[in-house]
Amino acid sequence: MTVPEILFLSQEDVIAAGGLDMAKALEDMELALRLHGEGEINMPPKIFLPFTEADGESFRAAAITMPVYVGGPVQRAGVKWAAESMENVRRGDLPYGIDIVVLHDVDRAHPVAIMDGTLITAMRTSAITGVATRYLAPPESRVVGLVGAGVIGRTTLEALCHVLPDVEEVRLCDLDRPRAQTLAAEFAGRLPIRIVDDAGTSLRGADVCITMTTSRTPYVQAEWVAPGSLFAQVAANEVEGEVILQADRLVVDEWEQISHYSGSAFRPLLEKGQVHDEEITNLGKIVAGEAPGRRTPEERIFFDSFGMACEDIVVAERIYQEARRHGLGHPLRLWELAWAM
Amino acid sequence: MTVPEILFLSQEDVIAAGGLDMAKALEDMELALRLHGEGEINMPPKIFLPFTEADGESFRAAAITMPVYVGGPVQRAGVKWAAESMENVRRGDLPYGIDIVVLHDVDRAHPVAIMDGTLITAMRTSAITGVATRYLAPPESRVVGLVGAGVIGRTTLEALCHVLPDVEEVRLCDLDRPRAQTLAAEFAGRLPIRIVDDAGTSLRGADVCITMTTSRTPYVQAEWVAPGSLFAQVAANEVEGEVILQADRLVVDEWEQISHYSGSAFRPLLEKGQVHDEEITNLGKIVAGEAPGRRTPEERIFFDSFGMACEDIVVAERIYQEARRHGLGHPLRLWELAWAM
Repeated sequence: MTVPEILFLSQEDVIAAGGLDMAKALEDMELALRLHGEGEINMPPKIFLPFTEADGESFRAAAITMPVYVGGPVQRAGVKWAAESMENVRRGDLPYGIDIVVLHDVDRAHPVAIMDGTLITAMRTSAITGVATRYLAPPESRVVGLVGAGVIGRTTLEALCHVLPDVEEVRLCDLDRPRAQTLAAEFAGRLPIRIVDDAGTSLRGADVCITMTTSRTPYVQAEWVAPGSLFAQVAANEVEGEVILQADRLVVDEWEQISHYSGSAFRPLLEKGQVHDEEITNLGKIVAGEAPGRRTPEERIFFDSFGMACEDIVVAERIYQEARRHGLGHPLRLWELAWAM
Repeated sequence: MTVPEILFLSQEDVIAAGGLDMAKALEDMELALRLHGEGEINMPPKIFLPFTEADGESFRAAAITMPVYVGGPVQRAGVKWAAESMENVRRGDLPYGIDIVVLHDVDRAHPVAIMDGTLITAMRTSAITGVATRYLAPPESRVVGLVGAGVIGRTTLEALCHVLPDVEEVRLCDLDRPRAQTLAAEFAGRLPIRIVDDAGTSLRGADVCITMTTSRTPYVQAEWVAPGSLFAQVAANEVEGEVILQADRLVVDEWEQISHYSGSAFRPLLEKGQVHDEEITNLGKIVAGEAPGRRTPEERIFFDSFGMACEDIVVAERIYQEARRHGLGHPLRLWELAWAM
């Protein structure tokens, strides 16, 4: 009898195995997006499972189940279970989102690794923005406008160090100004960060705009967004409809999922017939060379990412292989001796 | 900073915490079904993720993701990842199905337990058949016909010890006759088991018929199924259509999922308009007292179970609480000190 062994990796193990290596995460996302564009990925829609407060309506927490099979050279199935909790925000002692990733052997059907996915989620989310910037930012981008100095703010700055190393100004704002200052200090000497007072000041006229807040209502005005810019929305609904409507090009990670998500900024535009499926390009098609990237310096490009399980699994697979090479993690056995029955 | 702790339970831990206690599993299933009938469960459809052989078509393995939120007194979210592999069958060194169950804290959104779900799956599957037998078998059932002496065959015999303790004959057959004999010997003194040659001999005229094979094509003939009997199909497609059509009553665990499953014995009948949604009763409605159980001694009842994530989570929650009480399992920390970012 074979005993299936599962490698458990804590966040510290994930870090020791290269979890904070943004250059690798960017490579991973180029791979994940290319495979997605080439149709090598079988990824059912995410399943949202909300838990409400006692009133039966208010959002208390949610679990999002994200299964995927990644083909091509990866050949790995897995699932991310992404949980979110307002209680964590209220108490401030745990992150809003806590994730685990499980990797499976596709021949033998048992799990081979269970790891913290919280850090992987932050890294891959910003690496996707980084890849979008590589393909869609205007040539010689000089000014970047950022809104949000939380976890994703940090990983996004890390990604910018790689994809826009010669940027002249990075404007950063956050409702919690000291948090923005602390974050800027971390990147002193690596990025020319300037703290600004509000989203408008950050985004107005920037070559690349990136919003990554927990806001569930739009706050970005269309007039802030310059011609020729790339606008990357990391949350689902941060921009007023006109930001999307005035864009010359609409790119997303996966339109199939975004177009069906009730909380997406695209939803009201779709319902009014102002946006049509055929106007949208999945970023994977661009990375796979099946659709063009930026076509002119003048076009406004709007990019929206919903997050895809294939991103998590490609990163997790690299971490798992690296952890095995270095003997990291804690091996678990699904059963010790033999299947009992 | 809080450090989320996850209790890992191997199959041995699950057993030590009462995983093989069928009386408890039957109680669990009464609870799970009642909550299902009362609408206290939020259970999205299972997601099937097939992995094919190199030809791109033949079934190699599959992963089934089953997320659920169980309300009422349970208040637990979780997910079962059920994997199946033909390679395991070919090599014979691992079970066809290997499952893990993850339990989540619905306030704080982090996992609290990860455990072997392989044994739980077998126990809850047969406990559901047991509960169906309690509510739907003819009064004073004397003869039970079983087909299949595998893992589910064993747990089903265990369930029969509880729900039909006075049965006079249990006929058992399996394509692998020695396997059936070994299993019968295990229950010597507890159940009057008689090994028979084939499915027809086992099922013909029995008060309760239970089929639990890996067959993907129907082999049960309608003429074998007596008036007044309960027929419980544990796999999805073991009976010819007439077995369903001649039944006076159709009961299932969850019609929503069965009616959409392409491999179900109901599918061709639905497509031909021979079965209609309003003829079907979910077992949970019966357990919750919102629909009658067996109405007459004469009616033929056909019961089909697809398997529901809420069943796994209710068992897993009991195991988890018991494991905590007895200090079982291996505690894992999602991060050691503090969230890194």
